[in-house]
Amino acid sequence: MADVKYLKDFGEAEILRRLQQFCPAEIIGDDGAVLALPPQESLVVTTDILVDGVHFSDRTMPAEKVGWRAVAANLSDLAAMGATPVGITVGLSLPPETPMPWLDQLYQGMAACLGRYHTPLVGGDLTRSPVKTVAITALGTVSPNRIIQRTAARPGDAIVVTGHHGDSRAGLELLLEPNTPAAQGLAVGDRQALIDAHQMPLPRLDVLDHVTALPLTWPLAGMDSSDGLADAVLQICQCSGVGALLQAEQLPISPALRRYQPPEIAYQWALYGGEDFQLVLCLPMFAAQSLLQMLPGQGAIIGQITVDQTVAIADGTGKKMPLSRSQTFQHF
Amino acid sequence: MADVKYLKDFGEAEILRRLQQFCPAEIIGDDGAVLALPPQESLVVTTDILVDGVHFSDRTMPAEKVGWRAVAANLSDLAAMGATPVGITVGLSLPPETPMPWLDQLYQGMAACLGRYHTPLVGGDLTRSPVKTVAITALGTVSPNRIIQRTAARPGDAIVVTGHHGDSRAGLELLLEPNTPAAQGLAVGDRQALIDAHQMPLPRLDVLDHVTALPLTWPLAGMDSSDGLADAVLQICQCSGVGALLQAEQLPISPALRRYQPPEIAYQWALYGGEDFQLVLCLPMFAAQSLLQMLPGQGAIIGQITVDQTVAIADGTGKKMPLSRSQTFQHF
Repeated sequence: MADVKYLKDFGEAEILRRLQQFCPAEIIGDDGAVLALPPQESLVVTTDILVDGVHFSDRTMPAEKVGWRAVAANLSDLAAMGATPVGITVGLSLPPETPMPWLDQLYQGMAACLGRYHTPLVGGDLTRSPVKTVAITALGTVSPNRIIQRTAARPGDAIVVTGHHGDSRAGLELLLEPNTPAAQGLAVGDRQALIDAHQMPLPRLDVLDHVTALPLTWPLAGMDSSDGLADAVLQICQCSGVGALLQAEQLPISPALRRYQPPEIAYQWALYGGEDFQLVLCLPMFAAQSLLQMLPGQGAIIGQITVDQTVAIADGTGKKMPLSRSQTFQHF
Repeated sequence: MADVKYLKDFGEAEILRRLQQFCPAEIIGDDGAVLALPPQESLVVTTDILVDGVHFSDRTMPAEKVGWRAVAANLSDLAAMGATPVGITVGLSLPPETPMPWLDQLYQGMAACLGRYHTPLVGGDLTRSPVKTVAITALGTVSPNRIIQRTAARPGDAIVVTGHHGDSRAGLELLLEPNTPAAQGLAVGDRQALIDAHQMPLPRLDVLDHVTALPLTWPLAGMDSSDGLADAVLQICQCSGVGALLQAEQLPISPALRRYQPPEIAYQWALYGGEDFQLVLCLPMFAAQSLLQMLPGQGAIIGQITVDQTVAIADGTGKKMPLSRSQTFQHF
């Protein structure tokens, strides 16, 4: 590896020149980016930080996947509000000893995810730091009467999730513990599907068109499941002043995860694993059923919003367990 | 200091609750903030990162000043584009061992600067990291035909700066080397003025109303002098395909700096010191003179844009020296 070059081997101008290839030409070279927005729409802004050793590591995540995931997490936050992306900014802090290929691959991963969702990179900042840190701010727009909010759940609403849960946590486990008997026994296709779920999640912007086509009273209640499905249900219920009863047997768990882990662990990961980046929406039963018919097959109605403010999950025998706040991800 | 508490002594919920006091109540608790923008205006976005040990340190900057300065730098980037701020997001990465008062004071400093410019804190993210990092994204709006750009300088334009240069660098020197004879000989008022220029710069959003009142052809050429006055002139000339001739004797250097340092050093700091956060604007001579009459007295016409693409500064004898790119601040 004698010929790998590092950031410190390049001048700042050369590094910026390489990164600017990923920006639309018309916005390069000023103190900020200028964006024309659709009239009548509100701006939605969301920020996420990823820190080396906390949110990613070379052990589980090549740079390209770090870039994809950072973008996907932010676009998922926009989807969670009902917003269509218009651009992102990237604030990068990197040690001078960072290999230049790491930076190139980070941007290639970001560009790949941005390209899939037709979203431009509109600016950023680059500075040196002892710790690799990626701070992304995503901008989107939404019609003021089509906003998805945590506060709008109503008793009787069906709780819909737009896809499998637990796969991202399973993928992380496979990366951290590739040599357990369960991991070794897994087919190559299953293994790759679970790792992809962790490294290359797909923000559910595709769901928004279907949702706005439904005959609903707005605002709609919902958020994404980035901090875990249990956390999402708990947050929505707390913000809306309601409760929820989930049915464990309705949680959509992928065939790959079922083949990898026994049901107890699969359910635990589905509820508390996090980073599945699906949407959790609360809407009248008829609308929930219509929505599921429009989604590609992995969504499910997992329970119902209740007047009673407890948030619990029932197993197949009807036994209820409260959802646990303490198992949700804590940053400190 | 036995009773100082640290971030690790609090749950994430409690830390967020404290920080949310600085946010408008109506935007708390969703995945992103929703902002209504003035119709017909374009959105301007700019991002800046500050890293402990690179851009600030406990030695030269208490947390309150770190917060003020981080906000001021971003609002200055908006002013540099001609944009009026509508909000900022703050991405914070902090070690769990950070004292809680540091975080409280950081937000108090940000809130003080934001309040002065009637700008809300509209969101953010908080995560743990081995290194204190503050990533701010500022959002503003500008009428599409009132944008200030680096590319619009024309030969014959007067180059205007909106205030003193070199004071921020002088303030830093006083903090780093408080015991030199020059520092010890300085009056208390001069010392404080220079330190304030470094710790609590004022973004020149106040200039925009004056500029838009002038009978000008838009876009106007300009940027801020955050990376140094020389860097600003070099950038504008490179982006516009022109040159410039500055007059050293016209550089506005404060009386305090003149009393602190000999002229050679004062001129060096004025050109290359950076972080004065003034605006550097290129406009026809009559408009430049009108603008200066509207500013509170510290602005100056420092030179002229030339067809010849060299960028130089002339001293009192007429001797010309090229401006040096290598002395401008390099992040890597």
